Amino acid sequence: MSENKPRIKLPKEAAKGEIVQIKTLITHPMESGQRKDASGKLIPRKIINRFVCEFNGKPVFEAHLETAISANPYIEFYARVDEAGAFNFTWVDDDNVVVTAQEHIALKA
Amino acid sequence: MSENKPRIKLPKEAAKGEIVQIKTLITHPMESGQRKDASGKLIPRKIINRFVCEFNGKPVFEAHLETAISANPYIEFYARVDEAGAFNFTWVDDDNVVVTAQEHIALKA
Repeated sequence: MSENKPRIKLPKEAAKGEIVQIKTLITHPMESGQRKDASGKLIPRKIINRFVCEFNGKPVFEAHLETAISANPYIEFYARVDEAGAFNFTWVDDDNVVVTAQEHIALKA
Repeated sequence: MSENKPRIKLPKEAAKGEIVQIKTLITHPMESGQRKDASGKLIPRKIINRFVCEFNGKPVFEAHLETAISANPYIEFYARVDEAGAFNFTWVDDDNVVVTAQEHIALKA
């Protein structure tokens, strides 16, 4: 998988119970498995097939991606923040290469 | 589940191989199961726990949602369109109430 770090956008702090927007983007060619190389052989599928977001160890959002998902997959969703803590993000590709990232969020005083 | 129709935005047509943005929003209270009613009893959890998008019968994107996801969940992602056809969207909640929607996309001449 690419050495590029995933890009994640979410607020640094939220009021208790606030809904926050979470944007994620990871660099990955998402080879579909349907293309052929110059010699006519199929290029093996290699895509990110799973994305998971946990907050303080509890799952919040999980996505299963299929071959028609774009290169550099972008996923956006909203989650409710009831306490300060850490979001953990995990991307897994067909070769079981795993990329993780963590972002902290504080509660507004 | 609400009688409100889900809102879906995607282009009416795309070039072959084009990456299209798909935005989905459904009205649902997403009762977390952690709130109490006036008499102090827990209100049972009732959330949309699964969202699936298929294109011409093949899965493209599937999401598992947990209690921290916001009311009226919004999900955005990108898919590659290699042929004309229909996107089918399905939302399932804890009571197995299912909401479906379909959107067609054409290939640019």
